[in-house]
Amino acid sequence: MTGKGKAAGSGATDRQALDALTLRLIDSVATAIRRSIERGELPHIELPVRSLANVSFDADKGYFELGEALKTRTLTVNTVRSFAQTLRLMAASRQMVQSDDFATKREAYYISKNWGDCRFDEQAESDAIMDDIEALASLHGLSREQLRFYPESHGGSVAGPLTVIDTDPESGKVLEIDCASLGSGAYSVPHSVEQLGFRADADFILAIETGGMFQRLNNHRFWKQARCILVEMGGVPTRATRRFIRRLSDSTDLPVYCFVDCDPYGFANIYRTLKVGSGNAAHINRFFCVPRAQYLGVTPQDILDYRLEDATHPLSKTDIKRAKDALKNDPFFASQPRWIVAIEQLLAMGIRAEQQALAKWGLNYVIDDYLPRKLEDRDSFLP
Amino acid sequence: MTGKGKAAGSGATDRQALDALTLRLIDSVATAIRRSIERGELPHIELPVRSLANVSFDADKGYFELGEALKTRTLTVNTVRSFAQTLRLMAASRQMVQSDDFATKREAYYISKNWGDCRFDEQAESDAIMDDIEALASLHGLSREQLRFYPESHGGSVAGPLTVIDTDPESGKVLEIDCASLGSGAYSVPHSVEQLGFRADADFILAIETGGMFQRLNNHRFWKQARCILVEMGGVPTRATRRFIRRLSDSTDLPVYCFVDCDPYGFANIYRTLKVGSGNAAHINRFFCVPRAQYLGVTPQDILDYRLEDATHPLSKTDIKRAKDALKNDPFFASQPRWIVAIEQLLAMGIRAEQQALAKWGLNYVIDDYLPRKLEDRDSFLP
Repeated sequence: MTGKGKAAGSGATDRQALDALTLRLIDSVATAIRRSIERGELPHIELPVRSLANVSFDADKGYFELGEALKTRTLTVNTVRSFAQTLRLMAASRQMVQSDDFATKREAYYISKNWGDCRFDEQAESDAIMDDIEALASLHGLSREQLRFYPESHGGSVAGPLTVIDTDPESGKVLEIDCASLGSGAYSVPHSVEQLGFRADADFILAIETGGMFQRLNNHRFWKQARCILVEMGGVPTRATRRFIRRLSDSTDLPVYCFVDCDPYGFANIYRTLKVGSGNAAHINRFFCVPRAQYLGVTPQDILDYRLEDATHPLSKTDIKRAKDALKNDPFFASQPRWIVAIEQLLAMGIRAEQQALAKWGLNYVIDDYLPRKLEDRDSFLP
Repeated sequence: MTGKGKAAGSGATDRQALDALTLRLIDSVATAIRRSIERGELPHIELPVRSLANVSFDADKGYFELGEALKTRTLTVNTVRSFAQTLRLMAASRQMVQSDDFATKREAYYISKNWGDCRFDEQAESDAIMDDIEALASLHGLSREQLRFYPESHGGSVAGPLTVIDTDPESGKVLEIDCASLGSGAYSVPHSVEQLGFRADADFILAIETGGMFQRLNNHRFWKQARCILVEMGGVPTRATRRFIRRLSDSTDLPVYCFVDCDPYGFANIYRTLKVGSGNAAHINRFFCVPRAQYLGVTPQDILDYRLEDATHPLSKTDIKRAKDALKNDPFFASQPRWIVAIEQLLAMGIRAEQQALAKWGLNYVIDDYLPRKLEDRDSFLP
């Protein structure tokens, strides 16, 4: 699905094959149910168990993975509503694949309002059923986006020596979007990125926490000086941003460096989500994690090396709790001795530093000094 | 500064004139202070009063406006720190205008860390002083962006028959960005838009509340069918989004129609902020309000006309409070009889509807039926 050979593809051929796979999966579930009924048996669907008991951290793959446990949803008086909802939502997915359309999670909830007695009363209901279907699809290498259920949020902004290859949704004409020709603006990543192809003339991808830092690096054309592609995460990256970075790095074979705040939220929420995903949504990690991501900074040691102490803030109680949780309960951090040292160092220092704190030495210190020095010493990146 | 004649300009000439005006303003404040000192007098700065007592709603202009009351900040033992901070922040602004650089509000706070005793301890301090300087500049027709203090957040996504004219920050080369050629992606509006020029081949601008609806209208090329420019607001629009819509509609002379949820938050927060701004930040409204904006929908009457009742939610206590506040305390709504009727109708119905609720009739009902019917009857738009 991805790899070096895909660097100049449009993604269109892949998508047709995946669409065919999606339709086969939905048809096979429907056919099995129909046969059960014809045999006079109660129909059932087998769905992966999504609880943490069925999730493990695969250190080799580098992310949380769903195990093989299955739950069986059999048609009974008690399950008739959720059973029907599961089938209708799969039917909606089938129709969207066939008509090349999509629905956000919110829209998927609303289209049920015409389903009579099996309509969803709350979006929490439709989300849970969608998660079940998504988990089932993930066993077949298909993501929720492939089922045509799109997230509410689009991805972050992108700038640099990257050509995004897309097709006009109406005419089918191939479009090439040059992310180096958007001035002070940027390319806004769509809600689903499966259809995109990439051609890059860069050495790495720089994933940036804040919009302000992204704008600085873009306005000063840091991407030209450092031969990199800038991606704005805007805090914890959305599904679309994560998938974009994953597909981009897979298909161009470029490393991903993360530039975020030096605080437990930056480590354990932003960076960890991008790199290894979460246990709560283990069925999506195989599509959304970026195991090759590395942590460029800001590191606790940077606070000392770049003398940022007087531009820091004390760790809050929440910060301290989050850091201790990461050390104690998080299999990713627990498996990385260098992260353990870094988090313990931060706790001992009792302070946190934002990436903007570098402005203490001048607005463009980050461009002229900090990033070049960090990039010279890639062994200093945290894993 | 704006108008029909500017439709094809790059904005660059305007910007040079505004830069000169900005430098003159800063120099004149500095010169007056120096002269006071040379005369042996205590130096002072006159700044506009920003409290609500000095704000009024101008029904003709269509927004809240700052009055003429001034406060005097004289150098004393008690004010020495804030006095020095005001001057240093103005000096930083001057340097950024000269070097064509910028600082986010957060960066402006951090650059003070090298100011010794007059450094800011909290960002709230630097924000308050920045607001003072911004209010002063606004009396001279200059916005905070012109002072080169940029907001943290960029603007929303844009798609449609619009060419954005920008210059490459490095080479100065003119760049034309075709917002109809970005596939399923979009143009991400930068943090500051003062430098942009526009060329549009459209009949109106459609400002959309949710990212999901924007993606639907963009993927289905609604902008082609309806000859419009799509702008995603993503909830309450950011400064950058508001200023972008304002500059775009001024320079192309296109009307602005808002497509948001039918609830008090959509009316009183999203739409009202875009159209008339807020009393709390009256000094910025002259740059950021879009007085020509009209409310396309979703209206309370639409819930009945499009039979959305079973896709609605009950009004929450917060909704009801917000609606009653709008009727009682908001000079904008109070001055609009049709809004009073609409809000009272919503309160009587006791329900709210999201724009995605139209999906009840099919995912693309909004494209095939709702929007075309609404656009046929522009008198039904709320003012």
